[in-house]
Amino acid sequence: MDKKRVLLTVAYDGTAYHGWQIQSNGITIESELNRCLTQLLQEPIQVIGASRTDAGVHALGNIAVFDTTSRMPADKISYALNQRLPEDIRIQNSCEVPQDWHPRHVESRKTYEYRIYRGAFAMPTRRLYTYFTYHALDVAAMRRAARYLEGEHDFKSFCQTGAQVESTVRRIYSIELEEQGPELVLRICGGGFLYNMVRIIAGTLMEVGQGKRRPEDMEAILAAHDRRAAGPTAPAQGLTLVKYEFEDTTFMR
Amino acid sequence: MDKKRVLLTVAYDGTAYHGWQIQSNGITIESELNRCLTQLLQEPIQVIGASRTDAGVHALGNIAVFDTTSRMPADKISYALNQRLPEDIRIQNSCEVPQDWHPRHVESRKTYEYRIYRGAFAMPTRRLYTYFTYHALDVAAMRRAARYLEGEHDFKSFCQTGAQVESTVRRIYSIELEEQGPELVLRICGGGFLYNMVRIIAGTLMEVGQGKRRPEDMEAILAAHDRRAAGPTAPAQGLTLVKYEFEDTTFMR
Repeated sequence: MDKKRVLLTVAYDGTAYHGWQIQSNGITIESELNRCLTQLLQEPIQVIGASRTDAGVHALGNIAVFDTTSRMPADKISYALNQRLPEDIRIQNSCEVPQDWHPRHVESRKTYEYRIYRGAFAMPTRRLYTYFTYHALDVAAMRRAARYLEGEHDFKSFCQTGAQVESTVRRIYSIELEEQGPELVLRICGGGFLYNMVRIIAGTLMEVGQGKRRPEDMEAILAAHDRRAAGPTAPAQGLTLVKYEFEDTTFMR
Repeated sequence: MDKKRVLLTVAYDGTAYHGWQIQSNGITIESELNRCLTQLLQEPIQVIGASRTDAGVHALGNIAVFDTTSRMPADKISYALNQRLPEDIRIQNSCEVPQDWHPRHVESRKTYEYRIYRGAFAMPTRRLYTYFTYHALDVAAMRRAARYLEGEHDFKSFCQTGAQVESTVRRIYSIELEEQGPELVLRICGGGFLYNMVRIIAGTLMEVGQGKRRPEDMEAILAAHDRRAAGPTAPAQGLTLVKYEFEDTTFMR
């Protein structure tokens, strides 16, 4: 039978899930996609995800691919799959890709947002999507600090210890801090991110914002190549994987 | 013992609650406030709410008052109460008000927002705070229709039947429709609202946006004095009570 590879753009509210990756002790985004695709297409389906986000982390556009012999047109799978998925997971797009296309083996740009809610008290309707702080933050200082991280660097100091990677060198294309009323949005676009890298950057920039570190300290933190040199890992719920952009997208609609 | 009246500005995520008002069959915002205040102040407390919002409706700033003989300073109650409340309810401010002050017996302006999420598919992280539609909406037509509702009118056509009120005449100070990316925000400021009035206005304006009604039809809908003349009641989760403004706020900080 003819086999085709299908790409899914997946949005989810990570609150209720044990992250993306299949685990023995809890429901994950990956396990829900596999379960619902297997039901829908009536053959065993296993998706391959682009980003294995942590528990509580959200996505507007994570990417997954899978192979199927189903005759259902690739662009119709989004509609049919959304009928079966829980309402905190919604496919935003589905399309066919070349059979050898793998989301982790192609060049891509990923955009993450880390949202900080500033106020005297937390705002209930934003509690699941922001990190609340009652500390005043010096946004200008945070912006100056962020400049040091742009470009290609060894981000070992911003990588959760224990992560096994060949290289800790990554390229950040842009970091911006945008104020949206009480919310401060840290938006990072990069070619790839180490484990917990965005959350450690957020935690470190918040310390700059509180005056605990100077913007120019970022240079020494990078040079230390030591996780202990950077600030804390900011909590998961503030983080959202906003979008993936691939070098060659001629096959995507 | 000296008694004082305390005002609370209350924010909540209405998702998990059976609305504001105490009910026999479920947890409400009012029952949680009474429970936690009674524990905190160690005397029976019953709050009086300004707006008895429905199940699923959110608030950034609903108002409640209660009387207490506690010596705890009024402005400290917010901090202590937030320690006891579930995280989907957060007091934003507490202050003392005159003993005869009643939030439903003074002139006030209330601002509500109704949020519509427009897209091919719903967005999981916004599902609890917006009403999703895949219909294209003509925002300019909706704005023209909204103009007919500004000012003082008999809004009987926009009142849920069965509601017992002396008069169905209300004044809308302003209606605006703001586009925030995929979200269309209907923002209504008025002196008072009938039962389900904002949700019926939202449902009717959406029909105008879909071309099912013309903007100038609003005149006949108002003149009908009949709920059946207006459009459907838009779902609760899109509605947020944003703020209360009182005529005399010299006593509030």
